[in-house]
Amino acid sequence: MGIRFNDTICAPATIAGTGAITVIRLSGADSLAIVSKVVKCRKGSISDALGYSIRYGEVRNADGSLLDEVLVSIFRAPHSYTGEESAEITCHASSFICSEMLGLLCNAGARLAEPGEFTRRAFANGKMDLSQAEAVADLIASENEASHRVAMNQLKGTYSSELQSLRTQLVDLSSLLELELDFSEEEVEFADRGKLLELLEHALTHIHRLTDSFRLGNAIKNGVPVAIVGSTNTGKSTLLNALLGEERAIVSAIAGTTRDTIEESFNIGGTLFRLIDTAGIRDTDDEVENIGIGRTYEKLLLADIVLHVLDINSPVNSIIVSAKLIMSKLDLNHQKLFFVLNKADKELSELELAKVEASEASVEDFLDVNTIVTEFNRNVLSTDNQAEILVISAKRSLGIDKLKEALANTQKNRLDQSGNANLVTNLRHYNALCNASRSLMDVRDGIASGIPSDLVAQDLRHALYHLGSITGDISTDEVLGNIFGKFCIGK
Amino acid sequence: MGIRFNDTICAPATIAGTGAITVIRLSGADSLAIVSKVVKCRKGSISDALGYSIRYGEVRNADGSLLDEVLVSIFRAPHSYTGEESAEITCHASSFICSEMLGLLCNAGARLAEPGEFTRRAFANGKMDLSQAEAVADLIASENEASHRVAMNQLKGTYSSELQSLRTQLVDLSSLLELELDFSEEEVEFADRGKLLELLEHALTHIHRLTDSFRLGNAIKNGVPVAIVGSTNTGKSTLLNALLGEERAIVSAIAGTTRDTIEESFNIGGTLFRLIDTAGIRDTDDEVENIGIGRTYEKLLLADIVLHVLDINSPVNSIIVSAKLIMSKLDLNHQKLFFVLNKADKELSELELAKVEASEASVEDFLDVNTIVTEFNRNVLSTDNQAEILVISAKRSLGIDKLKEALANTQKNRLDQSGNANLVTNLRHYNALCNASRSLMDVRDGIASGIPSDLVAQDLRHALYHLGSITGDISTDEVLGNIFGKFCIGK
Repeated sequence: MGIRFNDTICAPATIAGTGAITVIRLSGADSLAIVSKVVKCRKGSISDALGYSIRYGEVRNADGSLLDEVLVSIFRAPHSYTGEESAEITCHASSFICSEMLGLLCNAGARLAEPGEFTRRAFANGKMDLSQAEAVADLIASENEASHRVAMNQLKGTYSSELQSLRTQLVDLSSLLELELDFSEEEVEFADRGKLLELLEHALTHIHRLTDSFRLGNAIKNGVPVAIVGSTNTGKSTLLNALLGEERAIVSAIAGTTRDTIEESFNIGGTLFRLIDTAGIRDTDDEVENIGIGRTYEKLLLADIVLHVLDINSPVNSIIVSAKLIMSKLDLNHQKLFFVLNKADKELSELELAKVEASEASVEDFLDVNTIVTEFNRNVLSTDNQAEILVISAKRSLGIDKLKEALANTQKNRLDQSGNANLVTNLRHYNALCNASRSLMDVRDGIASGIPSDLVAQDLRHALYHLGSITGDISTDEVLGNIFGKFCIGK
Repeated sequence: MGIRFNDTICAPATIAGTGAITVIRLSGADSLAIVSKVVKCRKGSISDALGYSIRYGEVRNADGSLLDEVLVSIFRAPHSYTGEESAEITCHASSFICSEMLGLLCNAGARLAEPGEFTRRAFANGKMDLSQAEAVADLIASENEASHRVAMNQLKGTYSSELQSLRTQLVDLSSLLELELDFSEEEVEFADRGKLLELLEHALTHIHRLTDSFRLGNAIKNGVPVAIVGSTNTGKSTLLNALLGEERAIVSAIAGTTRDTIEESFNIGGTLFRLIDTAGIRDTDDEVENIGIGRTYEKLLLADIVLHVLDINSPVNSIIVSAKLIMSKLDLNHQKLFFVLNKADKELSELELAKVEASEASVEDFLDVNTIVTEFNRNVLSTDNQAEILVISAKRSLGIDKLKEALANTQKNRLDQSGNANLVTNLRHYNALCNASRSLMDVRDGIASGIPSDLVAQDLRHALYHLGSITGDISTDEVLGNIFGKFCIGK
């Protein structure tokens, strides 16, 4: 930590050519000297300026003509984002001015920053740990309250503190083991094997709470995974279109800027839902076919919410068979299942439909759904599982709002249940925690099977290594390159 | 001027959701009081902060959770962009944070700014005149050196000064006329009619220099208008594609952000060229058809540069007839004409073509172009006109670079000729100057034909009105609404 970088970097911190202003950032020991060469102030000098002050000045091209009038915000080490001497130049938001300005700064001794290099310096200078640095990128990408809250908690270090306390537990474990090792040649038994196993179980429980939270954390960050399944001709595509609605264009516009690819996703009240590709999965009561396509059902387990679309006009018993089949493929402790009884418009007259559409009546006023609901209650639903029935007509957009509300509430309930607990949102962290968990289980097995303490200690060091990699206490250039390379320039 | 606005406005000055940071601007008497309510500083208060200083603080949601940590730049009236009390809040570039922040500011007493409202306030508070305010928008949109220089000159007021000196000349004229009016009942002649006419001619010459500059000014701002004409099957479309090349996608991407519609345009070394739609124009030696389509040639006069595409393999005399026809339609004092002799590849062997493509030889080494050049020199070209011959093969991309260079040089020469003179780039200004010119010509006619001085004075007042409308000395709410409505939010 506290590495001293020799050079001064610069980059735009906003997108040039849009908005009213562009901000260009500099960081490094020579920041203020470089800015002094480029920006000429009538009053006061930039090099002597106090931190947290602003100077007004002119920037001239090599030929002496005026490029722009700018404001320079000055930050003195260590009271800056990076911890280094820094400056921010605010100029007019023209792409021409921005590129000329960067050219002048580079001529004066700065160089263009790599993606994420400012934050990497903040990390290297001990201004934040690695998980906090990653939270900066998450915070910028956050588009709703839930993802914002998670990223902010991580940025503020509450997540790091939890990992730190976990690490402390493992260090305690390690001390006990080292004690054992010191005395190993004397064949002394573990000083307190009970205490050791207790600490171990406690740490494992803690890690598992965190890895379990990844399902929710990832849904918050990348969208709640939703699967739509059902036999052919039940109206899956129509439902899909009803859900995507006008959002399709909006979401893809956002997707281009903040994520790599979101093929199909929709937004309900600020929460992003993303569709899991379940092509190839369809329910069938043909036993042979069922065995053949059984494996594809594994994909269903990726979904947080499953919409099982059924034609309400089909024979009740075939509906129930289909429903039971899908249910058997799911993990209803972690997955929410909706039986979406579609095509409710089919038996209704145009007059009845008009009344429903005008919200003067509900589908149930005209369509007898009692039989099917009774059958579901008797054969499928129970208080143990998270399954619900909804009656809709995707074609006429009846019940779609209710379905959307149900989707939003499902996610809201999960968030409420998680309370203020730290959530793992980052795949890198999740993998590190899983690795730490595996190493700890090896420790447990090792103790149980009487493996020599020095080998057990080795497993424990692995667990510590994996935990340390999350906050960057242990890091390699490659890992850092991977993490910061995904940042935008100027961050 | 110096109008006091009662409310405080806020808006993002950068596009939220992109880049590393978002800047939110406030302006109005209560700016600092409002920011104080939203941003809590650990050290120092925002309300008491000096201008040109920065404060660090936290922003909390209504439920007390942390929304963001921000920096606040403080500007005290009149030393701000608008001339009012102002602040800029720098937060993380998340669209969620930005919208929540604006919500908190509005709850605390601000309101969302209209497009251009910050600059409108700057104008109303006498920080800049109307032509300077318009230059702010031009400066932001400028993408190359020429458009930047023109906008910057206008922003810095050298253009306004020139208009002001023109206005002074007219006021002098007016004084002479008023003198005449005072004595009119005594039937005294113009105190100095010679002096009056001299001033008048001087002002008219000045105005005409400015209106003439609009052709170049507009080309700098909106792209140099280019027309491609020629008979069918001379390869116009192939040439067009060769010119557009890969630029097509790039230009349309830029177009979407900064201009309304550019159907076909291309960029050479940072200079934008835009194609004029000359559909319907084709040269022909059919005299009858010529008369019929004569009117469509008027469109050709909109072009600064005309590319007349000819098939080099056609009979020389028919080429010359075509060339003379197009030339007769143009104003070669203001328009540059290129005779583009296309299909030069046709007579070349593949080996010869390969050599030319590898820059080991030029087309002229294998193709005899002397005959046609001699004919052009004898019948078409002269030192008086701006016409040139180029031999190309659009199909094989031979000579395209040379053509592009010729286009770029044409525009560069015009820029060099204009020197540092102020250019009119704004249609509103151009129209105002034309109106002023007409009024002044009425004054001249009035004096010549002995019209009563009070009527002449009326025309002179019209001319002054039109000039004054450019800088906004005279302005209406409607005019201001039109101008600032085109600005982006936050400017």
